[in-house]
Amino acid sequence: MADAGIALDVVGRGREAETPRNSLVARIDRPLKLDAGVELAPFQIAYKTYGTLNADRSNAVLICHALTGDHHVASPNPVTGKPGWWETMVGPGKPIDTERYFIICPNVIGGCMGSTGPASTNPKTGKPWGLDFPVITIRDMVRAQAMLLDELRIDSLFAVAGGSMGGMQVLQWAASFPKRVFSALPIACATRHSAQNIAFHEVGRQAVMADPEWRGGRYFENGTNPRRGLAVARMGAHITYLSDPALHRKFGRKFQDRENPTFSFDADFEVESYLRHQGSSFVERFDANSYLYLTRAMDYFDLAADCNGIVANAFKGASTRFCVVSFTSDWLFPTSESRAIVHALNASGVRVSFAEIVTDKGHDAFLLDEPELFAIVRGFLDGAAKARGLKNGV
Amino acid sequence: MADAGIALDVVGRGREAETPRNSLVARIDRPLKLDAGVELAPFQIAYKTYGTLNADRSNAVLICHALTGDHHVASPNPVTGKPGWWETMVGPGKPIDTERYFIICPNVIGGCMGSTGPASTNPKTGKPWGLDFPVITIRDMVRAQAMLLDELRIDSLFAVAGGSMGGMQVLQWAASFPKRVFSALPIACATRHSAQNIAFHEVGRQAVMADPEWRGGRYFENGTNPRRGLAVARMGAHITYLSDPALHRKFGRKFQDRENPTFSFDADFEVESYLRHQGSSFVERFDANSYLYLTRAMDYFDLAADCNGIVANAFKGASTRFCVVSFTSDWLFPTSESRAIVHALNASGVRVSFAEIVTDKGHDAFLLDEPELFAIVRGFLDGAAKARGLKNGV
Repeated sequence: MADAGIALDVVGRGREAETPRNSLVARIDRPLKLDAGVELAPFQIAYKTYGTLNADRSNAVLICHALTGDHHVASPNPVTGKPGWWETMVGPGKPIDTERYFIICPNVIGGCMGSTGPASTNPKTGKPWGLDFPVITIRDMVRAQAMLLDELRIDSLFAVAGGSMGGMQVLQWAASFPKRVFSALPIACATRHSAQNIAFHEVGRQAVMADPEWRGGRYFENGTNPRRGLAVARMGAHITYLSDPALHRKFGRKFQDRENPTFSFDADFEVESYLRHQGSSFVERFDANSYLYLTRAMDYFDLAADCNGIVANAFKGASTRFCVVSFTSDWLFPTSESRAIVHALNASGVRVSFAEIVTDKGHDAFLLDEPELFAIVRGFLDGAAKARGLKNGV
Repeated sequence: MADAGIALDVVGRGREAETPRNSLVARIDRPLKLDAGVELAPFQIAYKTYGTLNADRSNAVLICHALTGDHHVASPNPVTGKPGWWETMVGPGKPIDTERYFIICPNVIGGCMGSTGPASTNPKTGKPWGLDFPVITIRDMVRAQAMLLDELRIDSLFAVAGGSMGGMQVLQWAASFPKRVFSALPIACATRHSAQNIAFHEVGRQAVMADPEWRGGRYFENGTNPRRGLAVARMGAHITYLSDPALHRKFGRKFQDRENPTFSFDADFEVESYLRHQGSSFVERFDANSYLYLTRAMDYFDLAADCNGIVANAFKGASTRFCVVSFTSDWLFPTSESRAIVHALNASGVRVSFAEIVTDKGHDAFLLDEPELFAIVRGFLDGAAKARGLKNGV
């Protein structure tokens, strides 16, 4: 189980967490007040920027990444060597146009690509935090991002955009800092994680923690690596990012490099071989403990819980303009979840447009070549830019 | 991770595989010709019967169990101490009425409850088969059952019934032995396993095989037990047996025995605690290698592949009368799969009725208290009994 060109062992993993390559790093001494009731200080955030901040400092777009994403949104990923994860969306002339907007994409707190997380060094012990790292929430991620923007002296974002866990951050931004968000693009997300989604995450966490190499989260010191457990977790999660029709179209029941079944437990079917590859390549780039922390943050996400059970209260009085997007074949964050967001925004009297895009690509559609998505994002930002009085160039 | 009252270690597991409690056992010397191209001889089948075979030997109903089921269909399970898995359906006065029909339920070949499988002793080595056991198919299971019926001198079954993997066996029975099947009740199944379902199974197998205690399948000799891997496999699979609405209704985002999150990786949410229990209780009653073999058999199932790609050919000229049942919230074997069965039967000119039952209980609905299912099964068997000329009593 190895992916050509990628081989980040736990030592490399720790190094990337501390001194990320091809990244800007903000070291922040002010304490980050966490929902868990503790303070994190100092902490660091790795981030990337693209484009130029205008003189008014009014054209900044914050992009929030998903569970296993990072800040390398529109430039090659130094760990995998692959293109940035949203190069179809972000770049010169792209819907989120780097010739027009100043793009900031931070690695989330709890991540493993340069922002402080469980793979970072605990200053009290000089060793990796491991499970001593405090459990963080989506709101904590957003608080940390707001502190980064303070450092960058950006008071107000022209837009915040993201899909999946990134979409949760978008919603949380609008709820926590309504005055700092001119427009918001939550894609393929929900105001709270469903029981089924919590269940899938729990299976993934149990797969990691069942791996004896996990060592209670102290695999760095032990020189072990819970690769197999994390690979199983990724394989299971990956199924939920696709759709039954997409799997059927791509793989059906086709055998891998053969005509007939082998009557063995080899990867007989193409879909098995594909999944095994997804698992094995993931463990080369991602930290197992980060996977635990970030899935937990998603599970805890529940905007209504902070507002007496009424989501609409989260957006009361907001002047942010929203564009909510869902995909027909997304069964992880189905359209009904996006409709619930729209209903809450309507109930708060907030300006919102909504698009359900017809595709068989499932949840991952937000990362893929979806011309309708590109057109919607471009159109929404164009309209918002006019309203904000942004000029065409920087 | 232990379930009160159940504690079958690997030694007990092996014992149950060889000399199952509260079971009839047929030891068959004739070789079972397997799809893998090898012969299995001798082999044994553990089974249960309920009711009385009539003088004509014409009232026998074969019940085929699902992936993790067994032959204890309508009487207490000697391993778990729990009631039979289909006591709501099978018994005196129940839809499959033991006062009227003679019920036979065998444990499948490859299983671990007394029919020959990977936990049984390989006569050549005197040790458990482990992965030396040949990979078996649904057709092999059915062949073995036909040989059991030969031993019992039952030429023709009044009915064959089963859900999920049991439904696959029902379809295979009608395809392989059309003259021996008067009526067939395939519930919540399909003519072939989908790419998504193969993918879920592969994750489960990888979870088992990633457990170092699995030892390449030789855990019996090593005195180890891949409990954690098998528990993870079961947790993931269990989610697919339910539905998002059912999980939402049962658990929602409710915390387990507390008001607020613990900010930890404990089972904070009720759904997590429930899943962990599903995993831990399963490993006390099921053999890890059997799980590999039976999931594989389901993956290989593809009726069309045996008939030049046309499912209808599988049923050509059959006089069996069918009743096909699906459930609206079953996303593992959705109604579209059952419709495909019905279309194939229609194309073959076979008599078939079809019912889609509205329920939010997901795939597992076939095991649960579903009055509409009971009414349909009772009505279908009544009609078939009249057509067969069965008297009301035995």
